[in-house]
Amino acid sequence: MNYLKPTTKNELNRVQTALKKELASEKIIQDIYEYIFNTEGKKTRALLSLLSSKSSKIKPSERIDLASIIELLHTATLVHDDVVDGSEVRRGSKSVNQVWTNSYSVLIGDFIYSKAFILMVKLGIPSILDELAKATNDIARGEIIQLELSEKKESIKLNELLKVSYLKTGRLFEASAKTGAMLAEKSSEEVKSFGLLGRSLGTAFQIQDDILDYAALKFDTGKPAFKDFKEGKITFPLYFAIQNANSKERKFLLGKLGAKKITNKDQNKIYQLIHNDGTQKEINALLEKYSKETLKHLNKLKHHACYNEMLNLITFSKVRKK
Amino acid sequence: MNYLKPTTKNELNRVQTALKKELASEKIIQDIYEYIFNTEGKKTRALLSLLSSKSSKIKPSERIDLASIIELLHTATLVHDDVVDGSEVRRGSKSVNQVWTNSYSVLIGDFIYSKAFILMVKLGIPSILDELAKATNDIARGEIIQLELSEKKESIKLNELLKVSYLKTGRLFEASAKTGAMLAEKSSEEVKSFGLLGRSLGTAFQIQDDILDYAALKFDTGKPAFKDFKEGKITFPLYFAIQNANSKERKFLLGKLGAKKITNKDQNKIYQLIHNDGTQKEINALLEKYSKETLKHLNKLKHHACYNEMLNLITFSKVRKK
Repeated sequence: MNYLKPTTKNELNRVQTALKKELASEKIIQDIYEYIFNTEGKKTRALLSLLSSKSSKIKPSERIDLASIIELLHTATLVHDDVVDGSEVRRGSKSVNQVWTNSYSVLIGDFIYSKAFILMVKLGIPSILDELAKATNDIARGEIIQLELSEKKESIKLNELLKVSYLKTGRLFEASAKTGAMLAEKSSEEVKSFGLLGRSLGTAFQIQDDILDYAALKFDTGKPAFKDFKEGKITFPLYFAIQNANSKERKFLLGKLGAKKITNKDQNKIYQLIHNDGTQKEINALLEKYSKETLKHLNKLKHHACYNEMLNLITFSKVRKK
Repeated sequence: MNYLKPTTKNELNRVQTALKKELASEKIIQDIYEYIFNTEGKKTRALLSLLSSKSSKIKPSERIDLASIIELLHTATLVHDDVVDGSEVRRGSKSVNQVWTNSYSVLIGDFIYSKAFILMVKLGIPSILDELAKATNDIARGEIIQLELSEKKESIKLNELLKVSYLKTGRLFEASAKTGAMLAEKSSEEVKSFGLLGRSLGTAFQIQDDILDYAALKFDTGKPAFKDFKEGKITFPLYFAIQNANSKERKFLLGKLGAKKITNKDQNKIYQLIHNDGTQKEINALLEKYSKETLKHLNKLKHHACYNEMLNLITFSKVRKK
């Protein structure tokens, strides 16, 4: 986060402090809640919100509130996703479903979702409430579609993958940037540009996430390697690898997809199939396409106070290793 | 529902029609959504909302919208509860987690929650949004507390059970009545009375639900018998039975609590321990207490258009067998 101004870093810290504040009187809720928010995530969505809402017109506390709300929504989806995916690790620590149970995860996720809505109502801006309620609905939609797609395997199409990555990731990036701009009372034209910027940045972010899932075999990304693959998910890199594979290789990839345990030898073979020239060229081209699109939308916001930091965020997102 | 006026019955039908309308373009979402809303529930919360919002000042369509929102929220909690409890049956049909999987249930629950919030934002009344967001949060809180309580077994106290039944059931009854009255632009004094009426009605409703779980051994309640008991839940009747049991009987009850399979002989023995005179006297006194309290609050609303039907609802709730 060295590309951020000290004021922005300070705002992100205030978001982290706001997130930790849960006053439910029950110890069990406090315990799970603290456990979740003591491990810090990247808070990319909160940052996007903070950058988009920069304005001298707006009280800083309201910007922190909105960024916190967005981070709460995101965290609720992560807690539920870990149940859906049966994940054991989240942000380098055991997932809630591992420390407690799936049941606790379902309920604490609902608790965090509704807490976010309580704070949204308190913020009191109908257009922001509308956008965030719709984004939350779209995320669930995206996750359901992904769940069904994972049964389709090799017949998945690129536009289906793009739709899922928009709904499950791009949509909240879009809403983060849009609602930030709404809070800062930007013109409807600017709100639109911020939304489009967030949307393409979110897709680029998801593509990089998918790339890192395989890269984690060779360096520390903070996440276990081949997590997507072991969950049976066809992501962008695997999609291209399947397209480029010969029939024997394709059979191998699809045969191993979704296996809980994969030998080192097989992992290396999968890694090679993902990292062959053709596949790498295609996945990098796709990432580049969405990065360029993000920059195109940023270009319309040159006069905005966030310009330099937003440019850094976009550049960093593409090369990040975590 | 024979105690309702034809206009109210008609309104409940309109709620059912509204609930079924889901325009997500994806077939998988339509399928699960239809499956959930094709099996009709009692819609007690929607009815409570419709009765509380009766007013010539308000467009009927807004009253239907609010009642539908409340029923959506309730349904989302049921879908998630079935995951938490590992339930196989809901409203006489296989639960969503049985027909699909827990993962689909978690996500379609989130989808329905956020849909309810989208509709709430559209309704556009901040005080209603605030109340329903807080109620949703309290329901999750109540479910988490219940989950933790179920590990405490015989050391559970009556006030803990009352707190859980308020949060998981009474709270949404309270919000249904309160927001109905808010929509109908009642005075703050009346809104308060409606809220208190809903709160005590909800607790009475939960007590009757707990009673029916054991009664289901002897007659058709539409639900499997001993569901709570097999899930390891200490509910009101079991609480009193444990208090009244001798040490051998107590050991028997606690030993069987949470068992997936219970022999007919043991089921009969449990039934007898629940239905002994002392336990029945105490559980009926508790039910009577909350019914009376509900009537006390209704007495302040005698001039209200809903009075007679509300009186019928309260009376019916206490004697209902389903």
